[in-house]
Amino acid sequence: MTRTVVESATRTVVIGFDEPFCVIGERINPTGRKKLAAELESGDFSTVERDALEQVACGAMVLDVNSGAVFSNKMAEDPRYADNNFVEPPLMRALCERVQALVDVPLCIDSSVPEALKAGLEAANGRPLLNSVTGEEERLEAILPLVKKYNVPVVAISNDDTGISEDPDVRFAVARKIVQRAADFGIPAHDIVVDPLVMPIGAMATAGQQVFALVRRLRDKLGVNTTCGASNVSFGLPNRHGVNAAFLPMAIGAGMTSAIMNPVRSVEMEAIRAANLLMNHDPNGAEWIKLAKVLDAVKEGASFAEASKAAGAAAGGRRGGRRARG
Amino acid sequence: MTRTVVESATRTVVIGFDEPFCVIGERINPTGRKKLAAELESGDFSTVERDALEQVACGAMVLDVNSGAVFSNKMAEDPRYADNNFVEPPLMRALCERVQALVDVPLCIDSSVPEALKAGLEAANGRPLLNSVTGEEERLEAILPLVKKYNVPVVAISNDDTGISEDPDVRFAVARKIVQRAADFGIPAHDIVVDPLVMPIGAMATAGQQVFALVRRLRDKLGVNTTCGASNVSFGLPNRHGVNAAFLPMAIGAGMTSAIMNPVRSVEMEAIRAANLLMNHDPNGAEWIKLAKVLDAVKEGASFAEASKAAGAAAGGRRGGRRARG
Repeated sequence: MTRTVVESATRTVVIGFDEPFCVIGERINPTGRKKLAAELESGDFSTVERDALEQVACGAMVLDVNSGAVFSNKMAEDPRYADNNFVEPPLMRALCERVQALVDVPLCIDSSVPEALKAGLEAANGRPLLNSVTGEEERLEAILPLVKKYNVPVVAISNDDTGISEDPDVRFAVARKIVQRAADFGIPAHDIVVDPLVMPIGAMATAGQQVFALVRRLRDKLGVNTTCGASNVSFGLPNRHGVNAAFLPMAIGAGMTSAIMNPVRSVEMEAIRAANLLMNHDPNGAEWIKLAKVLDAVKEGASFAEASKAAGAAAGGRRGGRRARG
Repeated sequence: MTRTVVESATRTVVIGFDEPFCVIGERINPTGRKKLAAELESGDFSTVERDALEQVACGAMVLDVNSGAVFSNKMAEDPRYADNNFVEPPLMRALCERVQALVDVPLCIDSSVPEALKAGLEAANGRPLLNSVTGEEERLEAILPLVKKYNVPVVAISNDDTGISEDPDVRFAVARKIVQRAADFGIPAHDIVVDPLVMPIGAMATAGQQVFALVRRLRDKLGVNTTCGASNVSFGLPNRHGVNAAFLPMAIGAGMTSAIMNPVRSVEMEAIRAANLLMNHDPNGAEWIKLAKVLDAVKEGASFAEASKAAGAAAGGRRGGRRARG
């Protein structure tokens, strides 16, 4: 049985077919969040810290840490800041340290810059997830040695030098190539978490069926865990949360084992917890019953993050922040 | 490709693997609705009429009509009323006539009393769905000749003389037996809609996985459409709608093609419409976009039924009541 083990200093998360769906919190990511990028540029980590605490309180089991910031002001003063190879490695280190000082969930080290990934691998406690390798030759050559050296699992995105194919057979072939190349480096398939790439259903009507079939095939033929940027499926549609909230249970039913997503949205988290229950991955419905109480508080006006934090505190912080260590 | 054709006087609904999920409205059912039973006893059909209009406005494609009323007052005066063979046939006829006078969706004739089923088959326009046969010998002998004579599709519930098995292999075998016995009568498999029986997940943790596997097997091995009493899965749990709203998309992903359910609840209908979109059974997302507008009105305080009616009226009543006939 495929088990992808991810660890913080104190906590182990297993991604697997017989495990609760692994929610990887996506919020710590300055790409497309200009305000956050500006804060980071000025050395302000308060939003990152709030995002770390809120996401874990809401049920994130792993936190993605992306260092893809553009430091526009510094760039104007010092041209070295125009190069992400200069900006990202120290930023990744700082982000990992700040987050780990607050919460004890494993990290997912996320960057397009190999040196930033390396900085994250060095700064992260335990066994982080690396995000990501693709089927592009240059990327395979740069990332797989890091995966091997640090003995970590890696997200494998199924595009290659020809781009993202709309043909799911091609995306499957790219995933298989990555798994084979990883094997050449001595990296086992259970340390590859394939992202089959979810297309927006508004642009490609078959996108949902494609992904469900691909996930099942990746699981049956390659024996790998899978992940996705779940919200992409609803891009451009009205009532996106409603689409996401059906997509996630359907993907879980097809065998998807994790997603990189915003756990601070109650609609999606409710759908995932219900799917866990229906997959028999929630013993005695304990997590579902806990969530039902949180949702009662949300109905009375609390935000999902506030209500989740309050429930976590009432339960001795077991799902919350840093564990007391004896 | 399996197509189960159900018809009213003017409208055809196809249940099938490549069709939108068929929502069969369950509300017109005095079993367990004492107030409704008392109304029917006094000849008051106003609740039935409201339920018919509301369910169709909310998206029911077929209406279940169940005549299982107990007429307690009449029973005290006339002992014949203690016998459902006496009560149900004229009640079924009256229910069908009242409903058909208001809406033009096909009916699902639902009773445990064969003579009531016969009365419904005679009263119903078009090609109604018959609900139901089981694997019980007496029931097979009573119902299959009606199915053959009236050339209608039938719901086949997978229990037999030994009761409801907790073993999905036994429930599959019962379904197969019904399909085979139907074939002996010259009834094709595409006119059998199997209910694999959904157990409450609170009582049986494997209930969800059982049903998903059974539905897939029924589809692959017997080539039949499927239905279920969807809300049973969440019996006894808090926040039942949340469980149902994940169950339905997962069941649809596994191949379930219809459900007998309450369409007046927006949470479940939203999940079904999102699943239709994700299965590529909603061309151009037209139904999803329409629903998003209805849900906007619900957020502003309207009931789902009111908002759906208003949207139907604005669209010329296309999803609503009786069609104007040229």
